Amino acid sequence: MQKSYLLAPGPTPVPEQVALRMAAPAVHHRTPQFSRLFAEVEEGLKYLLQTRNDVLMLASSGSGAMEAAVVNIMHSAEKAIVVNAGKFGERWGKICQAYGVEVIWLNSPWGTPVNPDEVAQALRENQNVGAVFVQGCDTSATVQHPVAALGAIVKEYPRTLLVVDGITAVGAADLAMDRDHIDVLVVGSQKALMLPPGLACVGVSEKAWQKMDTTDLPRFYFDMRKERKSLAKHTTAYTPATSLITGLHEVLTMIRSEGLENLFRRIDCLARATRAGLQALGLELLAPGAPAASCTGAYLPAAIDGKAFVRFARDTMGVTFAGGQDDLEGKIVRINHMGYVDTFDVIISISAMEMALKAFGHAFTPGSGVGAAQEILAERYSL
Amino acid sequence: MQKSYLLAPGPTPVPEQVALRMAAPAVHHRTPQFSRLFAEVEEGLKYLLQTRNDVLMLASSGSGAMEAAVVNIMHSAEKAIVVNAGKFGERWGKICQAYGVEVIWLNSPWGTPVNPDEVAQALRENQNVGAVFVQGCDTSATVQHPVAALGAIVKEYPRTLLVVDGITAVGAADLAMDRDHIDVLVVGSQKALMLPPGLACVGVSEKAWQKMDTTDLPRFYFDMRKERKSLAKHTTAYTPATSLITGLHEVLTMIRSEGLENLFRRIDCLARATRAGLQALGLELLAPGAPAASCTGAYLPAAIDGKAFVRFARDTMGVTFAGGQDDLEGKIVRINHMGYVDTFDVIISISAMEMALKAFGHAFTPGSGVGAAQEILAERYSL
Repeated sequence: MQKSYLLAPGPTPVPEQVALRMAAPAVHHRTPQFSRLFAEVEEGLKYLLQTRNDVLMLASSGSGAMEAAVVNIMHSAEKAIVVNAGKFGERWGKICQAYGVEVIWLNSPWGTPVNPDEVAQALRENQNVGAVFVQGCDTSATVQHPVAALGAIVKEYPRTLLVVDGITAVGAADLAMDRDHIDVLVVGSQKALMLPPGLACVGVSEKAWQKMDTTDLPRFYFDMRKERKSLAKHTTAYTPATSLITGLHEVLTMIRSEGLENLFRRIDCLARATRAGLQALGLELLAPGAPAASCTGAYLPAAIDGKAFVRFARDTMGVTFAGGQDDLEGKIVRINHMGYVDTFDVIISISAMEMALKAFGHAFTPGSGVGAAQEILAERYSL
Repeated sequence: MQKSYLLAPGPTPVPEQVALRMAAPAVHHRTPQFSRLFAEVEEGLKYLLQTRNDVLMLASSGSGAMEAAVVNIMHSAEKAIVVNAGKFGERWGKICQAYGVEVIWLNSPWGTPVNPDEVAQALRENQNVGAVFVQGCDTSATVQHPVAALGAIVKEYPRTLLVVDGITAVGAADLAMDRDHIDVLVVGSQKALMLPPGLACVGVSEKAWQKMDTTDLPRFYFDMRKERKSLAKHTTAYTPATSLITGLHEVLTMIRSEGLENLFRRIDCLARATRAGLQALGLELLAPGAPAASCTGAYLPAAIDGKAFVRFARDTMGVTFAGGQDDLEGKIVRINHMGYVDTFDVIISISAMEMALKAFGHAFTPGSGVGAAQEILAERYSL
């Protein structure tokens, strides 16, 4: 008998009540019964994205919705400014290039957020920029980008949109679509939304809808204009992922019941506790200047083989962390604290880190990581 | 207290054991644990599609996988022959046109299958045909197309592929990818696979893989070459729909345990019983010459408003049939018999039809539809 703990930054654990709700008998998606549920999910998504804009639901993983953003809002003659400070920043650029769109790369080392001045400069120096593409949080680098600052810059350009991959940011960090002037905001189901993968949600601003009438890239399944027409009837253009949308209904009820302000406060506390625990064990954070709300990355001691470390935690303790990708493979560990995560998930994370570090011969005072995390987590409880 | 009966040709009911399996705790998709399950699903899909070819799994509904077929195997300079005898035949053509591919339409009235000679003639008369696109069954018209006959024709053309939408055919009719010379075969999760929507599977022949090196349409999320590389490691290029793939594992175990031969025999018996029941009530079949194995369509008496009829069955009896689409809207009823469907689902269908027809003033001998269905269903039981 070994329990399993899913503590990687996506997929995240599905709450029991959500899993059971999704196990209910199938409903037909072209019925008033489903449309009523769909309309309530629409309202919940507007609350979550902090927007009055339409929020579309696509049957695809997050990468599909990223492609939807590109093919709907870019014109083939335009350039794309792509903030690249991790694997998912790079993905924005690769999607643009797959459709023949010229990319202006703004590269930062993984773990370093983009400097808004660089974006402002690139916009001044280049004509005909269709959009600035960025991550709210790039999961691969556990770094948070300054989205609100970028919004303030991009909004001055009438033909340029701000497109944000919020897959590991929405529902963890305070990303407000309207307040922050985000034109397209992409969300995936398997992160802060606490669902299995396979559903993506996309908020689209009026500025983006208007631009869409003039764009020319080919699209069919991901055609947002068709989705908008269907949304007016509380449905989707193609068969929706009904079980995930039903689960999302339950998730959004949970989120509204907690309230976004409390949710952000909880996640922030869990994030600070995780960072403090790892630092107390002598580990260096991956993104110390702009750590993500949703997940924390830390370098393992150089002597430790990170792939073996992650495998050891998973196969001997039942604790699934994520390792590093590309250049960071084998060098880091990444720990989730978004979604269905509470105080004692952080305790399990740090305790498992302590026991695995001990097994790999790293020297530290036993309990010091957990102790440091507890110092912060205690904020959540008072007599 | 009213029970609900989902008897439309997709989504179809999800078996209880499959729903519960999908409610199990989330697994991370980049683990050896998930890859083992994935590899078993791959084998099960090969059994289902009757092929030795790779079968890809995409996080999308069936229409996304149809787009994947087009963008991967067509060259922009080629023509597409599209068999159009229903809404989904039309969809093949619309996807081609969205990507700038010229379409040669082979139109039949809804309910009439394509004549293979027409396809042979179109191939002789046109140079540079990249593929012939057809449905195994066009759900909108409940008609079955002669796929094996088309396969025998198309296989003689080295640069032309046969692409089959098997979304409501695979797992209901005997479509054998290798035997029937199908190059790309698309399957959706919410039909004979008895799962919620959101997962599509695509079998791809060696002839199709070889052609793919020379095609030029833009693609990213649906890039099959990337999926094939990932498949070699028993995973997907982008985050897979893990809960649906876990459910599919259970479904394929059920299908292998029944055996394809028994499965086709069961579905054929249910289909014949449904047709006999409807005809005994004086209704005319939509596709009498080539009725689909998966679902049956019938014209309602001209005096009956079909939209009101379907609504009445759903809202008063809890029985969800499908109505007609486009020109057939308000004129027909469509009844499912694929997937998790057995003798008494047919009895419920025909009994509900009798009671609804009575309410709408249609004259017939009460019980005559059920009686005719029972005559055939009794084949399944012998002392």
